[in-house]
Amino acid sequence: MGSPVHRVSLGDTWSRQMHPDIESERHMQSFDVERLTNILDGGAQNTALRRKVESIIHSYPEFSRKDDYFMTQNERYKAAMRRAFHIRLTAQRLGWLADGPELGYAYRAISGDVALNIHRVFVKALRSLGTEEQIAKWDPLCKNIQIITTYAQTELGHGTYLQGLETEATYDAATQEFVIHSPTLTATKWWPGDLGRSATHALVQAQLICSGARRGMHAFIVPIRSLQDHTPLPGIIVGDIGPKMDFDQTDNGFLQLNHVRVPRENMLSRFAQVLPDGTYVKLGTAQSNYLPMVVVRVELLLGEILPLLQKACVIAMRYSVIRRQSQLRPSDQEAKVLDYQTQQQKLFPQLAISYAFHFLAVSLLEFFQRSYSAILNRDFSILPELHALSTGMKAMMSDFCTQGAEMCRRACGGHGYSKLSGLPSLVTKVSASCTYEGENTVLYLQVARFLVKNYLQTQMSAGSAQQRSLPPSVAYLTAPVLARCPAQRAADFLCPELYTTAWAHVAARLIKDSVHHLQTLTQSGADQHEAWNQTTVIHLQAAKAHCYYVTVKGFAEALEKLENEPAIQQVLKRLCDLHAIHGILTNSGDFLHDSFLSGAQVDMARTAYLDLLFLIRKDAILLTDAFDFTDQCLNSALGCYDGNVYERLFQWAQRSPTNTQVGNHLAQHVCLKYFQRTHKRNQEWWYGLAGTLSLDYNQQNALLGTW
Amino acid sequence: MGSPVHRVSLGDTWSRQMHPDIESERHMQSFDVERLTNILDGGAQNTALRRKVESIIHSYPEFSRKDDYFMTQNERYKAAMRRAFHIRLTAQRLGWLADGPELGYAYRAISGDVALNIHRVFVKALRSLGTEEQIAKWDPLCKNIQIITTYAQTELGHGTYLQGLETEATYDAATQEFVIHSPTLTATKWWPGDLGRSATHALVQAQLICSGARRGMHAFIVPIRSLQDHTPLPGIIVGDIGPKMDFDQTDNGFLQLNHVRVPRENMLSRFAQVLPDGTYVKLGTAQSNYLPMVVVRVELLLGEILPLLQKACVIAMRYSVIRRQSQLRPSDQEAKVLDYQTQQQKLFPQLAISYAFHFLAVSLLEFFQRSYSAILNRDFSILPELHALSTGMKAMMSDFCTQGAEMCRRACGGHGYSKLSGLPSLVTKVSASCTYEGENTVLYLQVARFLVKNYLQTQMSAGSAQQRSLPPSVAYLTAPVLARCPAQRAADFLCPELYTTAWAHVAARLIKDSVHHLQTLTQSGADQHEAWNQTTVIHLQAAKAHCYYVTVKGFAEALEKLENEPAIQQVLKRLCDLHAIHGILTNSGDFLHDSFLSGAQVDMARTAYLDLLFLIRKDAILLTDAFDFTDQCLNSALGCYDGNVYERLFQWAQRSPTNTQVGNHLAQHVCLKYFQRTHKRNQEWWYGLAGTLSLDYNQQNALLGTW
Repeated sequence: MGSPVHRVSLGDTWSRQMHPDIESERHMQSFDVERLTNILDGGAQNTALRRKVESIIHSYPEFSRKDDYFMTQNERYKAAMRRAFHIRLTAQRLGWLADGPELGYAYRAISGDVALNIHRVFVKALRSLGTEEQIAKWDPLCKNIQIITTYAQTELGHGTYLQGLETEATYDAATQEFVIHSPTLTATKWWPGDLGRSATHALVQAQLICSGARRGMHAFIVPIRSLQDHTPLPGIIVGDIGPKMDFDQTDNGFLQLNHVRVPRENMLSRFAQVLPDGTYVKLGTAQSNYLPMVVVRVELLLGEILPLLQKACVIAMRYSVIRRQSQLRPSDQEAKVLDYQTQQQKLFPQLAISYAFHFLAVSLLEFFQRSYSAILNRDFSILPELHALSTGMKAMMSDFCTQGAEMCRRACGGHGYSKLSGLPSLVTKVSASCTYEGENTVLYLQVARFLVKNYLQTQMSAGSAQQRSLPPSVAYLTAPVLARCPAQRAADFLCPELYTTAWAHVAARLIKDSVHHLQTLTQSGADQHEAWNQTTVIHLQAAKAHCYYVTVKGFAEALEKLENEPAIQQVLKRLCDLHAIHGILTNSGDFLHDSFLSGAQVDMARTAYLDLLFLIRKDAILLTDAFDFTDQCLNSALGCYDGNVYERLFQWAQRSPTNTQVGNHLAQHVCLKYFQRTHKRNQEWWYGLAGTLSLDYNQQNALLGTW
Repeated sequence: MGSPVHRVSLGDTWSRQMHPDIESERHMQSFDVERLTNILDGGAQNTALRRKVESIIHSYPEFSRKDDYFMTQNERYKAAMRRAFHIRLTAQRLGWLADGPELGYAYRAISGDVALNIHRVFVKALRSLGTEEQIAKWDPLCKNIQIITTYAQTELGHGTYLQGLETEATYDAATQEFVIHSPTLTATKWWPGDLGRSATHALVQAQLICSGARRGMHAFIVPIRSLQDHTPLPGIIVGDIGPKMDFDQTDNGFLQLNHVRVPRENMLSRFAQVLPDGTYVKLGTAQSNYLPMVVVRVELLLGEILPLLQKACVIAMRYSVIRRQSQLRPSDQEAKVLDYQTQQQKLFPQLAISYAFHFLAVSLLEFFQRSYSAILNRDFSILPELHALSTGMKAMMSDFCTQGAEMCRRACGGHGYSKLSGLPSLVTKVSASCTYEGENTVLYLQVARFLVKNYLQTQMSAGSAQQRSLPPSVAYLTAPVLARCPAQRAADFLCPELYTTAWAHVAARLIKDSVHHLQTLTQSGADQHEAWNQTTVIHLQAAKAHCYYVTVKGFAEALEKLENEPAIQQVLKRLCDLHAIHGILTNSGDFLHDSFLSGAQVDMARTAYLDLLFLIRKDAILLTDAFDFTDQCLNSALGCYDGNVYERLFQWAQRSPTNTQVGNHLAQHVCLKYFQRTHKRNQEWWYGLAGTLSLDYNQQNALLGTW
């Protein structure tokens, strides 16, 4: 594969030479970048396999993204469809397994613009909620794309609050069928991906009604389009919900069901069954049906959300060593913007969370994989902790990745506003993750409930029957209380033990505070629901502090495992320190509130923080190189490996259709003349103008049509 | 004009009935909404005139925005061009003056998607920098659109740092011409609006070189396209820079100049002249050429930036009383999301800054108008204060409006991601303002320099020759120091005197702290430039606190003038209180740092804050109604006056071209078959399929071409 520049920039003519301003950043390496890449990949053999897959993907013109920024919504959808074909053909030809690593790497290389992704969500839901017989029936149909599927949960009137879903599935014992129905306009399914134009079958989440009783949300497989001619089946109204902030390639759709009948076997029945006579048999808990969402959430973190921030970091960091602006000293050459402290403050915390979240998401995925088969076998004891961790991390990572990507975008000044920088689409894409798969505020409040419950648990007298040991993520609630931070100088803040304890202290204090407020209100006569609502702002604060603590602790623990890699451990420890201290400074009020930190200690932390910015500076490019995104995958005129920013931006802009539309100058000229002679706007004037410009008949018509 | 619902929703069939959930919000009015609208408009006669203009604008189909979200970049540009025509024709026909109020109201009604806006920037620059003769020559040509102009300042390699601009204007005394030239690729002008496809003349900012000396940035009028056929003139390379995050309607362009000659008279010469022999005569200061930017910045606040946040507030607030989700108590109906404390916390601070910024921007505009003619007459004494206020407010307002609009967007859950909500385009539009007309970090640091300078001024011994009185905006630097906040209970925080003083205290402390750090570094041997860079993070913090103080003080002063409107004063005071206290809580570390506030006082402030959320709740819809945006102007399926959200969202989605593209289902079907029979992809298969589907020749070709 040769040198990195060759590997990452396959076939790009600009990459024949490196920009000296980025080359100099790579001269002195304080750590082995390739080794860090291997660690991120989970081993050198994974890195090698990933690169092999990338080179295959990038060799196909079908997967080229070079025209993505110039396409209409419809063109992007069609390109995504073509890619969905070709990735499956490629997988088939090369023997890549559906659950194997190659396909994951292939999706990473293509970077999102592939259609039919919800097909995979359907399959995951089927495997989580279906019986073995149901999986045996539907899984092969999905695998061979004999049907195209979607997961239809969200409705026009209800999203995260699933109990409010209105779609009904009423069991008819006479025919052994479910009647699936949208009783209101707001019951219309809204947003499911691949639904608008593509899917033939939907997994519809609906309120089950059998033997006259409402049994809550269950999942039903519903055919919605003909396998013969793809037209909607009787009783189905389906279409596309129109333009969105991003995700043009996805046909998010709507679906209304008018008394559509499906056989009894179409209800996924691992955790609940309806017998032929309408008897309801419950095999799981009330939460069982949420399992697919836990699966999807955990996999989203590494697969979808985090790479968007990492790419934004790569682009902004590389551009920041090419962009020179103003002088640090009057006689100097203009300085690289990354040498400005304010630019470092914008970018380095984003780099730090890129790493923090990586290690955390990996360990969460491992925890999930350990727990999943137990849950499928109906052992739900681990579910509360898994649910709290996955919701909390989804909320925090999507929030921080969105803020971080936007920070990176703005750190690129005006050029960050050009789509050709790649940054606008990263920002608009990642910001969707704050809402999809659970709105973040709601998710944080679910974490808060978990925290309140566990805090109350700690208040039970030891040895009482109700006392249970706490899940690991909240074990700090029983840790000994430290009234004051012992830091005496700035360097003391570079100690994971010190700042992890500080974060645990603040999280515990805020949780205690939130419970105190809740109890005060209920004791003064408010009912518990009212009291909950009136303290949610406080609960939110506590849940966020808890999540921050989890990331700091997780990052620190991941570093401990790198003891055999001292150089990498050292450079990553700076990021871990920065992450922890940046959070302390951003939330300094929470640390000062009970004098856990003094004002003087906050100043020490700030000194440590500013010193870290300076230290991280020299490794900044290498730390982003280590993510090992290819140029094709970044698709950014600002972020390419070779640093030839301005040449690429200029060349890419020339390709914009706005520069090549036929009759451009002529149309403009008509516009100008129109201004100048508005009082003469009549047919003679048009013909006169056409004569002056020697327009033929077609050109005349084009102009008349245009204006 | 009849009832509000009729006026705001002209001709919209959904508006025949009001949604009861929004109607109930308007039943009990604790203040006169119409009167508040009059106050915002600067008088009832202005409200009446504005509404008259709005009804005229909304009566023309040319100004309809109903298809905006479905258009391609090129279609939006053309629509904006049509609107640019028609607004001028309308103004001509109705006798609206170029500087009159009607045109301003018309632009507000059309809401931005009008081409040739930079034409107005050119005119402002001409009037600021041109001599009377130059104005007399060029102004009528602009007025009658005999030329189309742009303002070409930013380059590929330089933005906010104007001294770094590379374009050169070398005076040739032999021919009495300037030779305008782009010496490098990075000197290419990049980003000017209306340049890509429209402009015939550019005001080019270039480094003046005369008699062998470089004289800094000056402005030159350069013809770039033929007035005969609109093609680029010799030596000119011009085009469109391609797709952006928003502003599709604007043809932001690039411009390379290859030794283009313009006559000596084309340099704007109010503040500097080049005599025929090449002698350079300076009449202003080094800052004079920045005057157009001050003008543009001040006018941007009310004209461009703030309405985007206000509209986002209107949309999110209205949707939040229609959207019901989950229950506050188990037996209740589902609650309006605006009744949740967390939703109030998201939206009400944005509503508060919408008002805070309005009053501040009005007073800044008045201050500017008082100062402008003095500056034109070369009295520059007021310029430092005006510059600091306009840069600081531009930075703070664009930052907060961007964060606020995005907060409103996310507060609408998934539907906030649909373009049909109107919110994505508000967010992507307003976020551009953080970069254009000066990058915000750079602007804040300019404020910081002003603060440092004035702080050092206060350290001069009283009565010394160098002691001058401080500009009003920083007079607090000499106010008596109050070591502790006197608040003893939550209600004490509802006092403008108390919180204005608190903000002044924090701003003064941070400014002092930043100067202290700067001096410590220089005293320890760092040169002053290095010391500045190493303290910029601290300066930034101080500048932001100062700006926040300015908004709190400005809002409190505006309230004092409403003493004859007690009901309105009361409701706005709650917003002022909320704005001040929200800032205190968000930055509580700054207030706790030196024990100005205690932890217990921060808790009191939080209690006051949560009580305010509850109090503002009942007026929330009325306070957004008072902005008096018409439905056409909001262009949002979620934000219409009548609250018929879901009907409108459903109906608008049906109009998406993705639902009407020809051959949609057939193409899908081909796609499906393609999957199912990938091994049989050959001509026979296509023809067989075409037969099955009864496709004619054209349809076959269309399908083959599509896939």
